[in-house]
Amino acid sequence: MDRIPIIKIGGALLVSVQIDLHDRLAVALEEDLADRIVATGARGVLIDISALEIVDSFMGRMLDTIAAVGRVLDAETVVVGMRPAVAITLVELGLSLTGVKTALNVERGMAMIATSTAEGVDEAAIDDSLDDV
Amino acid sequence: MDRIPIIKIGGALLVSVQIDLHDRLAVALEEDLADRIVATGARGVLIDISALEIVDSFMGRMLDTIAAVGRVLDAETVVVGMRPAVAITLVELGLSLTGVKTALNVERGMAMIATSTAEGVDEAAIDDSLDDV
Repeated sequence: MDRIPIIKIGGALLVSVQIDLHDRLAVALEEDLADRIVATGARGVLIDISALEIVDSFMGRMLDTIAAVGRVLDAETVVVGMRPAVAITLVELGLSLTGVKTALNVERGMAMIATSTAEGVDEAAIDDSLDDV
Repeated sequence: MDRIPIIKIGGALLVSVQIDLHDRLAVALEEDLADRIVATGARGVLIDISALEIVDSFMGRMLDTIAAVGRVLDAETVVVGMRPAVAITLVELGLSLTGVKTALNVERGMAMIATSTAEGVDEAAIDDSLDDV
C-alpha cells in the first residue's frame, strides 16, 4: 500500500492506522493530511491506532509531528483507540505525547473535537472584542 | 495484524480495509462484524475500500457474505470509496455485487444508511398495521 486512506466524517478527518508506518508512508500521510485539512477545512483529525499492538519512538514522534502540523492549520489532532500495553510502552519510552490529545474511542474523540471547535469559534466573544476596538 | 479494527460512529460501524484479506483475516472480520452488530445494535456497516488498488473474486465474495450476514442481523452494508479501476475489474470478473449497496464516500454511505433506517422503522406504519389486526 502506498497511501493510508483519509476518511472525511463531518468536520473531521479519520485515519485508521493498521500497519507500521515506515519513513515513506509516514511522510506521505503527513503530506496527505495537511492537504486534506486545507482542502476540506476540517477542524479535527482523528488517528485510530486500535490495530497497533506496538508503538515505537518513531511512531510517537510522528504523532507529535502530525499534531503540530494540524495545529498550525487550525485543526486539532486526537489519537484514539490506544491499547493499554501501547500506553504503557509510550510512557516507558519517555513519549507521553504532550502535544497530542487522546480519547478512548472515535466517538469520544469526535465529541472532543466538536466541543473545542465550539469553544474556539465563540462568535459572541469575537464580536465583543471587535466592539472594543 | 490479526484483526481489522471496527470503528463505531453513531449508529454505524466503519471498517477501513487497507490490506489484502486472506482467509483467516476475512473470517475474523466476518465474525467480529457480526459480534459488533449484535453488541452495538448498529443498523449499518460501512466498508471503505479506497486503499485497495485491486480486488479479486475472493474479496468480491467476501463483501457479498458480509452483506448477507449483516442483512439477517438487520444491518445494511454499504461499500464505499471504490476506485474506478476496481469497479471495472469487478464487473469484468462478473462480480457486480448485487447484494451490496455502494456509495462514493463514507459521508454519502452514512446518509444512505440513515435514510433507509428511517424508512425501515416507520413507526406510524407499524401502528396502523397493528390497528388493522
